[in-house]
Amino acid sequence: QLPAGSLQLTLYQYKTCPFCSKVRAFLDYHGLPYEIVEVNPIMRKEIKFSSYRKVPILLANAGSPLQLNDSSVIISAIKTYLISRRNSLEEIVSFYPPVKTMTEQGKEVLEYENKYWLMLDEKETKRVYPVKEVRVEEMKWRKWADDWLVHLISPNVYRTPKEALASFDYIVREGKFGTLEGLFAKYVGAVAMFFVSKRLKKRHQLRDDVREDLYEAANEWVKAVGKNRLFMGGNQPNLADLAVYGVLRVMEGLEAFDDMMVHTNIQPWYQRMEEVIQK
Amino acid sequence: QLPAGSLQLTLYQYKTCPFCSKVRAFLDYHGLPYEIVEVNPIMRKEIKFSSYRKVPILLANAGSPLQLNDSSVIISAIKTYLISRRNSLEEIVSFYPPVKTMTEQGKEVLEYENKYWLMLDEKETKRVYPVKEVRVEEMKWRKWADDWLVHLISPNVYRTPKEALASFDYIVREGKFGTLEGLFAKYVGAVAMFFVSKRLKKRHQLRDDVREDLYEAANEWVKAVGKNRLFMGGNQPNLADLAVYGVLRVMEGLEAFDDMMVHTNIQPWYQRMEEVIQK
Repeated sequence: QLPAGSLQLTLYQYKTCPFCSKVRAFLDYHGLPYEIVEVNPIMRKEIKFSSYRKVPILLANAGSPLQLNDSSVIISAIKTYLISRRNSLEEIVSFYPPVKTMTEQGKEVLEYENKYWLMLDEKETKRVYPVKEVRVEEMKWRKWADDWLVHLISPNVYRTPKEALASFDYIVREGKFGTLEGLFAKYVGAVAMFFVSKRLKKRHQLRDDVREDLYEAANEWVKAVGKNRLFMGGNQPNLADLAVYGVLRVMEGLEAFDDMMVHTNIQPWYQRMEEVIQK
Repeated sequence: QLPAGSLQLTLYQYKTCPFCSKVRAFLDYHGLPYEIVEVNPIMRKEIKFSSYRKVPILLANAGSPLQLNDSSVIISAIKTYLISRRNSLEEIVSFYPPVKTMTEQGKEVLEYENKYWLMLDEKETKRVYPVKEVRVEEMKWRKWADDWLVHLISPNVYRTPKEALASFDYIVREGKFGTLEGLFAKYVGAVAMFFVSKRLKKRHQLRDDVREDLYEAANEWVKAVGKNRLFMGGNQPNLADLAVYGVLRVMEGLEAFDDMMVHTNIQPWYQRMEEVIQK
């Protein structure tokens, strides 16, 4: 879709973080090449150039270098850029400004405005969303992936001490850790996250058996896609498909993932996603 | 701007609620006629037709009847409609869908997407925002009015028992209450809100003397407008000017308002707003 080399991308990530996985799913599906910088989650010195202290961060160079923060802003901005070359990427990014707000509890948080909205004109909108209801549907489910689905991951993959250990084994194997650091992270991390995940479970009001919520979410998603579409996007995945796939993928190889495949209807859709992304 | 009678509007409101005042400031400034239905805040039977249980609600009839919820969605949708007649109001409203999300504390809330964004094409954008930075500036300050400025109202107008009583006297006088109801509301309400406002003050981490936060906010706003503009919108107010004015206006006649006029630099801007809105 883009002339080769016209957009140099570098993704700063933790490989096993669902938000990073979402961005990779998006970039891979669109055939955009990018370099990966795996960030050490303890020191994070790879992103010390940035005042924004979270991953993913995407550095995009389309003429001049530009830093994109927040997985959904990254996806909306790049997608807008791919569809509509009317504006520079820099201008597009300016439509998703970070705004400081207070939560009900008086905590200051940074929120990006419009982050599920593609900045298209009428003609582009008609091309991308021939059925206009799909635009709102896509937005709702992208938000659902960010605000609900991701919260099911930790409580599920750290559910039992054994699962917590398996998860950290996987995180340390895939992530960037020093040898000693990794050993330390694995055991201390597993114990810590086992307990933290109980707190998260309570905060998000999950059921006692957190698998139930995971299964319900997976089936809810399959139902939303429906029987008459291969993907929510129709014959091809849209940004909601990519988001849900990106989030769920981080559990691959873990017990929670296998359980989900066995106990829900999600497998056919998931396999279709794997196929179109690997192509 | 609109052919007379082409858009019949009915606003369901509490007169003294800042979100309702914001909508009125917007409609008045744009010269749009509307009917007002004052809602009884105890029984709320005037809005029993609606599953959305808050005010303001705007019923708009541009051919077929349409219910608009949330003050900022109302303002963004109608403003978009005024600028660009490409889409029906119904279609425009669909670009601001309500989405259920969980707060960090596991409370389910309804949020409207894109609510500070006008749905304009490139040509319209250039006409409305000749300087493009103003678009983001307007959005940020509209959000500031909703998420920060409004939270300063209750702690300030219920600051002391005397002020709480004066505020409720004003609310009951301006609002729709039965005779007995009003008497009851005035004294019980004043006592209740005096205490509630202390809790709100804590939640939003306001200073011990809540006037300080109000003064700071007023001066911050004046500074954002700057010395080279009459309004944030230039020679005419934009949606941020209207939002800030609409919120502050509900304190008129109360001690907090008079104190703000004396102790901050906001008066010249405020008077300019009064003039352009009364015209």
